[in-house]
Amino acid sequence: MSGHRRPSGRARRDRAAVLRDLGEFPLIDRIARAARRAGVAPPALGIGDDAALLASRPGEDWVVSTDARVEDVHFRWRTDAPRTVGRTALAAALSDLAAMGARPRGFTWAFAAPDSLPLPAFDGLLAGLLFESRRHACPLVGGNLTRARETSLVLTVLGGVPRGRALRRRALLGDRILVTGSLGGSALARARAESEGKPVRCIPEPRLRAGRALARIAAVRGCIDVSDGLAADLAHLIGPDRHCPLDPARVPRPRGFDAACRRLGLDPDALVLSGGDDYELLFALAPRGPSAAALSRRLGTPVSELGRVAEGPPTAAGTGFAHFAPASGTCR
Amino acid sequence: MSGHRRPSGRARRDRAAVLRDLGEFPLIDRIARAARRAGVAPPALGIGDDAALLASRPGEDWVVSTDARVEDVHFRWRTDAPRTVGRTALAAALSDLAAMGARPRGFTWAFAAPDSLPLPAFDGLLAGLLFESRRHACPLVGGNLTRARETSLVLTVLGGVPRGRALRRRALLGDRILVTGSLGGSALARARAESEGKPVRCIPEPRLRAGRALARIAAVRGCIDVSDGLAADLAHLIGPDRHCPLDPARVPRPRGFDAACRRLGLDPDALVLSGGDDYELLFALAPRGPSAAALSRRLGTPVSELGRVAEGPPTAAGTGFAHFAPASGTCR
Repeated sequence: MSGHRRPSGRARRDRAAVLRDLGEFPLIDRIARAARRAGVAPPALGIGDDAALLASRPGEDWVVSTDARVEDVHFRWRTDAPRTVGRTALAAALSDLAAMGARPRGFTWAFAAPDSLPLPAFDGLLAGLLFESRRHACPLVGGNLTRARETSLVLTVLGGVPRGRALRRRALLGDRILVTGSLGGSALARARAESEGKPVRCIPEPRLRAGRALARIAAVRGCIDVSDGLAADLAHLIGPDRHCPLDPARVPRPRGFDAACRRLGLDPDALVLSGGDDYELLFALAPRGPSAAALSRRLGTPVSELGRVAEGPPTAAGTGFAHFAPASGTCR
Repeated sequence: MSGHRRPSGRARRDRAAVLRDLGEFPLIDRIARAARRAGVAPPALGIGDDAALLASRPGEDWVVSTDARVEDVHFRWRTDAPRTVGRTALAAALSDLAAMGARPRGFTWAFAAPDSLPLPAFDGLLAGLLFESRRHACPLVGGNLTRARETSLVLTVLGGVPRGRALRRRALLGDRILVTGSLGGSALARARAESEGKPVRCIPEPRLRAGRALARIAAVRGCIDVSDGLAADLAHLIGPDRHCPLDPARVPRPRGFDAACRRLGLDPDALVLSGGDDYELLFALAPRGPSAAALSRRLGTPVSELGRVAEGPPTAAGTGFAHFAPASGTCR
């Protein structure tokens, strides 16, 4: 067989292959090769040793977060492109580093799947992970492969943050509450995709740069990323004994959002309060801290002020998503 | 209701409960409470924030490893006690830190399960994890909960190692190959449990102290933990272009091992070469390094010398376990 025909023959074979045709170690090699091709080399010692080794920098603490994506809970093979599933998984995990003000240093990927999973689905997931990995300079440093009845990805992201500067979930009485970007867009995209029977394709943008900028501002008292929905994550930020009265009209939303919601028969205010997966940063600022306009310039992204932390428990409002909860509705 | 009766009422209710009766956030609270009760407080900021924060020590690099346990692949609810599943999962993950010479600093636990999982199974897993967590001073610092069709645990362990001292998978020509403890015991226990229809109960002992001691010995060239089986892990340690002739008679085995194997109709030599899950440390030593006896004293555990690294590819021998491989046999 001539040299130039081999790749296409191999590509054809790969399209028809399933995981069991390769086996664990060839799959690990495949991941390592793809990572090298994508130009995301692990910092010290990565894929293929007992564990990954990451050089720590002086004066830096480590931040670690774990996030899982399960077939038919967080994504559906029937509608979602594997590459989108991979991109979304890493982007969402990195959002937790953004919310701590950390810089990504690496991630591990634990992958479980039936051995009948088509190789192109595996390759798509991997390509999506490596795309975000490269974009955010967060190399794949290790992981685990195992067979299972359903597909799942567990990503553990590691980051570094200057000592004592990590953004925690915290807010004091009287603090101003602000948010980056706009909310509700992700929930609307999901609703629209469902109504049109099309795949959901809204890959989150982890606010890593904004998070690091917030960590450098002394007046920033605490931060969380909006993954469960504004009302729910606000409660996580300020704690059970405080609340922050929210005027839905002040919550920033994408252009044309309200009209698009109404066309789908959805309440736009409810969606910005309770729709999750926007991955914007919600943060608490000391009363005398910078204005929203000054913060927008400093963070390089729009910032809106939502209200102030008040005494007393919260009033009833939209609630976020909780796993295992009896009323958990949409595909998450 | 009087004070002393409440716990028993609650305990009775918990025994009959399943995950969906609690929901995600109460389960997270349950984990945090159990961790506090077990006396394993996270080092800086753990469960309940966006990410865990771990203080890094001067002159120390970070080691990270991810390990997964899936229902009906690595354990069976029908036969295995939840506490044993939890203990085994963390002990096996920590073995990867041992093989790098690292000291544990913390772990994250991603848990996926059907919402019909009985709460006592969850509590048992948690108790097993926290037992090993406490034993090895490795606090639970974060994780993720999600529903899924089958149960799985993904543990990511983090450790610290003095800069430049991490033990890698490496061996040079002429290096002596040694191993801690004995091999085959885990495979024999599995075989015995299967033949008697009893639950498998052989919780690995991660060789953390021995690993750290090896990392301090300059003559130690490389190290791996024996999880896939001696022959397979030896190949991982020395690479594809070298081999190490093994005399099965020199491989250390538990007392009474050969007779017990024969009673079950098993070949003891095959079992010590290919049986996995022993989690002993297999390491390469420069020719003029200390004797096995001197190492035994230094490591506080028996050490046996198996052979020397020779040129050329390996000869056929027992093979280890690989996920997704067509011939993957036992429950792993």
